[in-house]
Amino acid sequence: MIQSNIYYGFAYFCQQIESMIPSDTIVALATPSGAGAIAVIRVSGKEAIPIANSVFKSVQGKDLTTQKTHTILLGHIIEGNRTLDEVLISKFKGPHSYSGEDVIEISCHGSPYIQQQIIQLFLRKGCRMAEAGEFTLRAFLNGKLDLSQAEAVADLITSENEASHQIAMQQMRGGFSNEIQLLRDELLNFASLIELELDFAEEDVEFADRAKFKELLNRIQEVLKRLIDSFAVGNVIKNGIPVAIVGEPNVGKSTLLNALLNEERAIVSEIAGTTRDAIEDELTIGGIGFRFIDTAGIRDTEDVVESIGIKKTFKKIEQAQLVLFLHSAEEFRNAEIDLKSLQLEVGKIALKHPDKPLVILVNKIDLLNAKEKTALENMLSNVEGSAFQLISAKTGGGVDMLKKLLLDYVNTGALRNNETIVSNTRHYDAMLKALEEIQKVQNGLDDSISGDLLAIDIRQALYHFGEITGEITSDDLLGNIFANFCIGK
Amino acid sequence: MIQSNIYYGFAYFCQQIESMIPSDTIVALATPSGAGAIAVIRVSGKEAIPIANSVFKSVQGKDLTTQKTHTILLGHIIEGNRTLDEVLISKFKGPHSYSGEDVIEISCHGSPYIQQQIIQLFLRKGCRMAEAGEFTLRAFLNGKLDLSQAEAVADLITSENEASHQIAMQQMRGGFSNEIQLLRDELLNFASLIELELDFAEEDVEFADRAKFKELLNRIQEVLKRLIDSFAVGNVIKNGIPVAIVGEPNVGKSTLLNALLNEERAIVSEIAGTTRDAIEDELTIGGIGFRFIDTAGIRDTEDVVESIGIKKTFKKIEQAQLVLFLHSAEEFRNAEIDLKSLQLEVGKIALKHPDKPLVILVNKIDLLNAKEKTALENMLSNVEGSAFQLISAKTGGGVDMLKKLLLDYVNTGALRNNETIVSNTRHYDAMLKALEEIQKVQNGLDDSISGDLLAIDIRQALYHFGEITGEITSDDLLGNIFANFCIGK
Repeated sequence: MIQSNIYYGFAYFCQQIESMIPSDTIVALATPSGAGAIAVIRVSGKEAIPIANSVFKSVQGKDLTTQKTHTILLGHIIEGNRTLDEVLISKFKGPHSYSGEDVIEISCHGSPYIQQQIIQLFLRKGCRMAEAGEFTLRAFLNGKLDLSQAEAVADLITSENEASHQIAMQQMRGGFSNEIQLLRDELLNFASLIELELDFAEEDVEFADRAKFKELLNRIQEVLKRLIDSFAVGNVIKNGIPVAIVGEPNVGKSTLLNALLNEERAIVSEIAGTTRDAIEDELTIGGIGFRFIDTAGIRDTEDVVESIGIKKTFKKIEQAQLVLFLHSAEEFRNAEIDLKSLQLEVGKIALKHPDKPLVILVNKIDLLNAKEKTALENMLSNVEGSAFQLISAKTGGGVDMLKKLLLDYVNTGALRNNETIVSNTRHYDAMLKALEEIQKVQNGLDDSISGDLLAIDIRQALYHFGEITGEITSDDLLGNIFANFCIGK
Repeated sequence: MIQSNIYYGFAYFCQQIESMIPSDTIVALATPSGAGAIAVIRVSGKEAIPIANSVFKSVQGKDLTTQKTHTILLGHIIEGNRTLDEVLISKFKGPHSYSGEDVIEISCHGSPYIQQQIIQLFLRKGCRMAEAGEFTLRAFLNGKLDLSQAEAVADLITSENEASHQIAMQQMRGGFSNEIQLLRDELLNFASLIELELDFAEEDVEFADRAKFKELLNRIQEVLKRLIDSFAVGNVIKNGIPVAIVGEPNVGKSTLLNALLNEERAIVSEIAGTTRDAIEDELTIGGIGFRFIDTAGIRDTEDVVESIGIKKTFKKIEQAQLVLFLHSAEEFRNAEIDLKSLQLEVGKIALKHPDKPLVILVNKIDLLNAKEKTALENMLSNVEGSAFQLISAKTGGGVDMLKKLLLDYVNTGALRNNETIVSNTRHYDAMLKALEEIQKVQNGLDDSISGDLLAIDIRQALYHFGEITGEITSDDLLGNIFANFCIGK
């Protein structure tokens, strides 16, 4: 059959997906666990509406089964004579629901006891406890989301600052998967034309316009390279940019952190118990997450224990993308201004990590009088090529400048221009592989290799594209992806 | 004016309530804080719908303001060009809402970052952060709930077992406040008739039928006494029944606790981090909460430190409503069976706390052979009037019997018969005071005191009735009650 080799795979995939769509009805708590004003319990599947109807008594005597989609009923969850709770029930008739199936959301009182009682009642009525991410998995299997969009849902929930939130939002709303999808369709079209040529091999026809095909390959490579490049930024944004703060004790590292943290403190503390204690010190500046790594002071020592500390410091600097070197202005006070000690200290770091961008901060300038300050500024301005920054962590002087400097560092343009950014390692890997295959196809074209060999490489590229959007998938892959979701999503 | 003295008070109250109904729009997170699949943000007030509409863009291009009540729209929360989240918005047009005002519920992705961003957006748009219990306070002020029903909402959320949940549910659905309300109305009617008599004092008429009035007073006293009596049960159910486990080390106290806990462990651990660690050991048997208080062993000692421990044990027994005395069957092994040591130990407790019901458990019967067991049983059956129970905490033998025994202890009839139970100290106090006033009225009637004096006592009784349902209230009282709520309720 014409085009059979490509389309057989797709038909097989569709069949596979169909067999994966589950027929049972699942239930889970969708809101965070614990006590609150209300909690939402989600039920999805063929039996969601009849099961909910069997345990629900509307205050107005209405029937849940005949109720319109996207409406809410007030009533009671009852079991026999016992009233479990007064609830609001939202009805979503598939496919117009999150999972694409019939969905019932029960908004009950936020007591853990009630949550548990209602869930247990639904389990007794034939529901199954949902696994992590199972509602979203069903949404994917029902074609409500592609795979990269589904992955963005999990990223969205874990995003803690504006930048990572924006990446996830963009991805959830289509993001690069639309772009990839369009390119894939074009490529698929060429692939089928080339395979068609194979069926007419003896006649030496050329259905696929080689010039146009080359043009498409160029476009694909352009897009893939741009997306692959964005991963460095995306990855850093997702995880926060690691910044090492280096300096001797008492140069004001904590004070600096507090000064940076100050205006964002409310926001950080509202996102309670997320990361601040676990990772070092994390804060958001202008919507970008930074992870500050505190280090032990660096100085010459013969003390064994202290040496170990300093070795650790150098190790931590390795993990950082940016090093803030803090020096106290006190040393420049009253004295003949001597750069030597500063140069010595900075030199040690720069020698070990010549690749790390270094920001040199002279702190505690509030301790200097006007004359001393001018002298210091004059001296530093004479140091060639270095980026000194005078600050007072205590009074907050220069802290805004430092923030701007930190932001400038990550301001690669991509972020500002709202461009699509790849932040998922799985997508990154698939794109690298797709690019490799596309380059093989291009080389093959240049070398005028035979159509059947060309077709193999194209199919490989299509495969990697499909991996991103989830058109090519496996139980293992899906299992891995959705296991990272929370229950109830 | 006729009836003016009574009704002036009520009109004044209505006026007061009216002035308390706030005109601003409040916003809060209604679901527990933290990350989850979804979170619900609640907005209530006159501007709830227009404000929500100004930041919401429906996917289908629908307008939130013209949308029907109790319907759900899918769309995005937007601020300028920035999309904050894809959400479901539920619309409730007042008075058909929880608070009685216009209410919007936003079901967003459950990321703390998103929750915070959306709430901040609503604050910028003119909403105010809701205070604890403010949605329920508004429901009360708008006449959606009476005060005791509002209080039951908070009880419902904190209820951790079936019994306390049932009390709260019953109370929230009307419970005794309906009964109190009906009696109050009847009493109010008599009161106005008696005050009417005062207006016609010179004519010596009797509008209020004294026989019927007495009959009403009797009925009121009956109801109040029943409700007041139920408080002991209600209080215990709400807080869990304190049970002291007394016995020497190694008689198997922990094993017994584990055996009791066994089948309920799943439930207890699902209600994570609530009480088990904080209070001693708490578990639910047949829907009733029990608090087990572990104690130091009791024995004769000259050791000062040990004496202090034993004194503490006696103090803990005082707090308990029931004492489980654990004794090891090992002492009865192989030996001539001698009751003396057991009697001595039990005697010490019984002498100190003659009012505490004592359950004597002989544990570790699995260690006895058949002959020893029979001998023990024979001996114990000869002890007059005592309730021995042979158990093996290790194998679980006799544990079901013990559970039944614990349940029987609280099975006062009231609970089983689904009768109304008072569990709130504030209601209990008001009922005690109301009863006192009603008894004064009755005494006054018996002594044929003058109508004006009678009217004063009746008004006092009415006042206390009103306190329960919230018809008589004050800012302070409301503040106290709703401060115990969680934010968002």
